[in-house]
Amino acid sequence: MSALPLSTAEVPRRAAAALERLRAGRPRVHAVMNTVAQKLVADGLSALGAIPSMTVSQDEIAGFVARADALAVNLGTLDAARRAAVSLALDAAAARGLPWALDPAHCDYSPPRAAFARELLARRPAVLRANAAEHDLLAVPDGVVSVRTGEIDRIALAGAALIVENGHPWTAAVTGTGCLSGAAVAAFLAVEPEPFAAAASAMLAIGVAAGLAAPHARGPGSFEPALLDALAGLRPDDLLRHARVRHEQS
Amino acid sequence: MSALPLSTAEVPRRAAAALERLRAGRPRVHAVMNTVAQKLVADGLSALGAIPSMTVSQDEIAGFVARADALAVNLGTLDAARRAAVSLALDAAAARGLPWALDPAHCDYSPPRAAFARELLARRPAVLRANAAEHDLLAVPDGVVSVRTGEIDRIALAGAALIVENGHPWTAAVTGTGCLSGAAVAAFLAVEPEPFAAAASAMLAIGVAAGLAAPHARGPGSFEPALLDALAGLRPDDLLRHARVRHEQS
Amino acid sequence: MSALPLSTAEVPRRAAAALERLRAGRPRVHAVMNTVAQKLVADGLSALGAIPSMTVSQDEIAGFVARADALAVNLGTLDAARRAAVSLALDAAAARGLPWALDPAHCDYSPPRAAFARELLARRPAVLRANAAEHDLLAVPDGVVSVRTGEIDRIALAGAALIVENGHPWTAAVTGTGCLSGAAVAAFLAVEPEPFAAAASAMLAIGVAAGLAAPHARGPGSFEPALLDALAGLRPDDLLRHARVRHEQS
Repeated sequence: MSALPLSTAEVPRRAAAALERLRAGRPRVHAVMNTVAQKLVADGLSALGAIPSMTVSQDEIAGFVARADALAVNLGTLDAARRAAVSLALDAAAARGLPWALDPAHCDYSPPRAAFARELLARRPAVLRANAAEHDLLAVPDGVVSVRTGEIDRIALAGAALIVENGHPWTAAVTGTGCLSGAAVAAFLAVEPEPFAAAASAMLAIGVAAGLAAPHARGPGSFEPALLDALAGLRPDDLLRHARVRHEQS
Repeated sequence: MSALPLSTAEVPRRAAAALERLRAGRPRVHAVMNTVAQKLVADGLSALGAIPSMTVSQDEIAGFVARADALAVNLGTLDAARRAAVSLALDAAAARGLPWALDPAHCDYSPPRAAFARELLARRPAVLRANAAEHDLLAVPDGVVSVRTGEIDRIALAGAALIVENGHPWTAAVTGTGCLSGAAVAAFLAVEPEPFAAAASAMLAIGVAAGLAAPHARGPGSFEPALLDALAGLRPDDLLRHARVRHEQS
Repeated sequence: MSALPLSTAEVPRRAAAALERLRAGRPRVHAVMNTVAQKLVADGLSALGAIPSMTVSQDEIAGFVARADALAVNLGTLDAARRAAVSLALDAAAARGLPWALDPAHCDYSPPRAAFARELLARRPAVLRANAAEHDLLAVPDGVVSVRTGEIDRIALAGAALIVENGHPWTAAVTGTGCLSGAAVAAFLAVEPEPFAAAASAMLAIGVAAGLAAPHARGPGSFEPALLDALAGLRPDDLLRHARVRHEQS
């Protein structure tokens, strides 16, 4: 059993401190985001304290990334223009040493998208966020933190993994919450230089918010606004009190 | 007065059985969907039990359709790329004998869109879903089930028509609920081989859910999450109890 | 201190009368709208009583604008296709003398977008709607009404300015509410020929609705449906009762 980059006891404390910096610093996050989830992701980033932008215009994206503090690349509704925009965004991010997170949404449905995801992994995102089916298709390079979301969330690096057991089943029923996870990782990367801690903080923030939101909802429809309310109202202290994290026993 | 393909008494029973299969089978529905309604339609399909996908990338759409159980084609926010994607999607659907539903959204605003809708009707969708203004522009080919949504919903085939009187006026005030109806027809086509029964089941499911949702809402804004909650919680039994269907007296 | 085009006492009365005409006339508003905010803006326009359309297809946009009563041009998620669509839409609007409102969303992030916004201002929209950062980059031509939204809203023309102090802080936390303001200005331009009065009416309607919505929300997530409910339920009388407007003391 490999050692985690930070102990399970440290995770909530790091997450709470990062959330505090996020609220105070209001980092800009540029998200190349599929058209389905754009609104939810923008609202979710705003609720966390970040300032989202989402253009994929090839004339403009380098300028937006140059003004951003982190980049999220989501491959949903990928087309030729969006693919070109991703490359331009990554060049602009690399030029400034900007951290970025990759979300290869639905790459299990589409061999060309999976191939593109592999190319992008070779450009070394700080964090990969994917579901189990997407993960199974991709080989995560050494040193890239991998987040596998699902009933429980698993944040892994170099053979060690942290499990976050917060969250709520309704989350999976709302389109775009996975995409929001990926973008939230980018928001935390803007305020937490250590990618494993940033990824764990993002998953904990969304998971705890989901748990706090559920009692205010009647189903997945009302869960979505309740989740945004909970993200906006989330206090660092909530992370300390409600975190359910453990070291994966392998 | 022509005979209906199934009696008014059979409609709720067929719908209840189809809903049960939808929940159990979790069919994949690929929806070429206008950018405005994508999120609501994805959430509505998920709430019914289906698994939505929505790419219009020309590199990818055949792959997505090949993994789907039904196809929905909506002509809103149509542009050249989306038009090309529709053709590729229909080729992929035809190759596998996949059922599909056509929604010629807003074709009454745009002569080229109406012309494209006519071309697509000639490729014989299982079901056409449109509002009255759109219907008036199009000639429905023999054997294509036509659904006209409005204050009441009318499902017609070969001179006979079923009227569904469920639903709620707030539905029309929420952008994309018509588009959701068309996509829901596709979801039911995945589990009910008879297109008339599939179309009637979809309209009944959405209409009954709308009626159950309204008491939880204060207006069209809160009606949208309430409708998604109601779709997610809808039980086959609700369709049996609340159906208000009749044979159109012509 | 220059004189306002209409007195502060007249503003709520003009707004109430315009809202009444909007509800009765159901004008069509074509909105070139960024993909992030499309759904909220469509729902918000519908809630006010307008009928929205949003295509940016170059084949179709002139036809949509020809059937519209006003045009809203929002520069968010601008790309080459959208840029071309804007020009076609403006040509169609000019041919019919249709009033239009410009929203140079996020032009402060992107020099090419700011340059395009300047070109469009030279085509003389009736109203410019922007936040403070966007405003600072642009020179408003004489005779164009300028709306600067923020904690308070400022409607200015020829050196005189009206301040609207309605609204609620949650509005800024919901992505797309600024875009909705710009589109609402276009909706009021369809029923109020005087641009200053149309702009003031739109800002007052949204501000009063926000104030009425807030007590029904727990945070920005639930504020969005509550705002739509409030817009849909807004009565002319609410504007008379709740308006907080004043002449800017310069």
